[in-house]
Amino acid sequence: MAAPLRLGIAGLGTVGIGVVKIIQRHADLIAARAGRPVVITAVCARDRSKNRDADLSGYAWETDAVALAERADVDVFVEVMGGSEGAARASTEAALAAGKDVVTANKALLAHHGQALAEMAEAAGLAIRFEAAVAGGIPVIKALTEGLAGNQMRRVMGVMNGTCNYILTRMETAGLPYEHVFEEARQLGYLEADPNLDVGGIDAGHKLSLLAAIAFGTRVSFDDVQLEGIGQISIDDIRHAGDLGFRIKLLGVAQVSGRGLEQRMTPCLVPADSPLGQLQGGTNMVVLEGDSVGQIVLRGPGAGEGPTASAVMGDVIDLARGLRLPTFGRPATSLVEAVPAKVAAPAPWYLRMTLLDKPGALAKIATALGEAGISIDRMRQYGHEGGHAPVLIVTHKASRDDISHAISRFGATGVLVGEPVAIRIEEV
Amino acid sequence: MAAPLRLGIAGLGTVGIGVVKIIQRHADLIAARAGRPVVITAVCARDRSKNRDADLSGYAWETDAVALAERADVDVFVEVMGGSEGAARASTEAALAAGKDVVTANKALLAHHGQALAEMAEAAGLAIRFEAAVAGGIPVIKALTEGLAGNQMRRVMGVMNGTCNYILTRMETAGLPYEHVFEEARQLGYLEADPNLDVGGIDAGHKLSLLAAIAFGTRVSFDDVQLEGIGQISIDDIRHAGDLGFRIKLLGVAQVSGRGLEQRMTPCLVPADSPLGQLQGGTNMVVLEGDSVGQIVLRGPGAGEGPTASAVMGDVIDLARGLRLPTFGRPATSLVEAVPAKVAAPAPWYLRMTLLDKPGALAKIATALGEAGISIDRMRQYGHEGGHAPVLIVTHKASRDDISHAISRFGATGVLVGEPVAIRIEEV
Repeated sequence: MAAPLRLGIAGLGTVGIGVVKIIQRHADLIAARAGRPVVITAVCARDRSKNRDADLSGYAWETDAVALAERADVDVFVEVMGGSEGAARASTEAALAAGKDVVTANKALLAHHGQALAEMAEAAGLAIRFEAAVAGGIPVIKALTEGLAGNQMRRVMGVMNGTCNYILTRMETAGLPYEHVFEEARQLGYLEADPNLDVGGIDAGHKLSLLAAIAFGTRVSFDDVQLEGIGQISIDDIRHAGDLGFRIKLLGVAQVSGRGLEQRMTPCLVPADSPLGQLQGGTNMVVLEGDSVGQIVLRGPGAGEGPTASAVMGDVIDLARGLRLPTFGRPATSLVEAVPAKVAAPAPWYLRMTLLDKPGALAKIATALGEAGISIDRMRQYGHEGGHAPVLIVTHKASRDDISHAISRFGATGVLVGEPVAIRIEEV
Repeated sequence: MAAPLRLGIAGLGTVGIGVVKIIQRHADLIAARAGRPVVITAVCARDRSKNRDADLSGYAWETDAVALAERADVDVFVEVMGGSEGAARASTEAALAAGKDVVTANKALLAHHGQALAEMAEAAGLAIRFEAAVAGGIPVIKALTEGLAGNQMRRVMGVMNGTCNYILTRMETAGLPYEHVFEEARQLGYLEADPNLDVGGIDAGHKLSLLAAIAFGTRVSFDDVQLEGIGQISIDDIRHAGDLGFRIKLLGVAQVSGRGLEQRMTPCLVPADSPLGQLQGGTNMVVLEGDSVGQIVLRGPGAGEGPTASAVMGDVIDLARGLRLPTFGRPATSLVEAVPAKVAAPAPWYLRMTLLDKPGALAKIATALGEAGISIDRMRQYGHEGGHAPVLIVTHKASRDDISHAISRFGATGVLVGEPVAIRIEEV
């Protein structure tokens, strides 16, 4: 049997300890599958005295991740610290400079520096693997980069932030407002230290930008992801969407059209009986659409010790087996600069507004929509309450601009109470 | 760029022509991803004059698959003819003997001869790849063999015959009996020439046996798959199962316990709101459960030109990229002979029977169940019709033997009309 593959693990949080546990528990199984033993030679974390749920006594200890990355007895640098700058970036660069392959769970690092790191790695004949960075335990990077490599990808979609999906699901099932469930999630420890990474869509946007690069052969361009969080989603909209047969998800969509590369991470309505609509709680889902394969749906845990460590180990075992690919599935130097689409593809829209209880109010709204070139698929008016009438409209396909234009016309009708809500309906 | 990878395609049916089309349409995309061109040098089918939906004029033509397999200008032999014996087997063996890698969509061939072929390939340093053989376009072999390689697998499940799922779905939605929908499916061309391959569960059983070998490191043992087709499923059971919150699926399950390796391809009830329960029509689904990752669900088209060709191309591009693994994820010589479980794991059961409208009839059945050591989770008695009362029972966990024992006791009560129906409820 070949020589062991020696890992240095930087970061002993949930994921790092998960990796340690798998390697300790399944040494024989991994060696049988990889064709060689996989061992840990050194680990790294700031605080050595902290009580951790694994026996680390057999490993050399570094307090500096760069020092770990440069150790002669490390073949693969496993970066599970997180953060797009600082120690994570410095140690990843140091590992590549020292001729080590890198396995990382760090979506922020790659979303911001993926192109430079991939070029650095590939110039040196090294691999950067990041299955754990996207959708936790779901082997989606592998499915997209390898399994579907014969396809021209049409669209990639995903619910890739479990915390947001938990919040939206809990709002729906318990009938609680956003602020209440946000606070619950915070107390349960589901939120990042900066909650905007979750609820603002940034974390999921990082992931989407990595999938888009692989799918479309473009340089990672996180800055071009249209980001909109879930903070404006009301329990009213969740209920009304449900009445119309939809659920609201923080949905990432990447697709290429004549308009360019579209990357959106925004709340969308999806049919409640679609796989995306049926996804409840913290589970993740990625939908991959290719010209030959049609639609593939992958579902699984998007976070947690076991699932994320499973993804890290998939990458590690690939490297142990000698399976090596360019970071984004083709040489980084061949990735093209994406032309960002200025406008998103047209879609049906969900509109909710409150009208004054005046004769002809609804007709004025319908007229304004027609004048903006938008046709109505379904409209529903609810019973009047205190002189106000809630109205729901599902439009036929329209651009975001057309919808904004229509909404500004609504304002001129004099029958509108407050601001209308407009949420895109993604056709899945 | 490296030298082209040269394919010889044996079989110009749906899948073979699908592969030709992808290579013709996406030559540049594939070369960019694979790092080298992928070209077809020769093809093979019996009837050259047949009109096929692709331009084959640029390829050498063989009428004998063995001759194709042995051509000096073929690097990879793509076997998409089908059949476990005859030309498929002979040409695959010839390809390996001639030092060619093999990509195949042939589940029957591998279910029957996988061990011998894998040993032959690995002794010569060659690869046999078969993503297209299981669940069509879903990259499940890759997910299981590579992505989840850090997991001890607990259970693998799947709905892997689209025709059966189409029939069961159509029976439910149209309220039509099995015989009627079977005939529809035949006329639509959904059924194999020997329909028992589909509705008898054989085709899906072949696939399950391949997944089990990878998941558990055991030799393929199709003969140990417990096979039961869908021919006995009645519209009554589909309706009653629905009333109880279940759907009936032809479900494959492979798992290892203290009893040994269990492989079943049988009709089962699954919760209607689970991913498996929600699967409608011809779509396939595979559920992979590992000790670290938890549950991963993969969903996609299980057949058809594009999806199956997509899977073939994933394997071809892997080979072009130099990604090579043992056929079943670890050396074939290290695979162990599975000890087949003599009895399946206990499960809840769905029982349906008709009782005579006599006082105490239901009590007698309940008593018989209790005497067989089976406790009742739910029981439902419907209105009497013509002196007969339909009764549904959902039991707590029981073995198949206990259920058979109870059913024989029912017979002795003298209140039973006809034979009871018993269907396992798989906990998903």
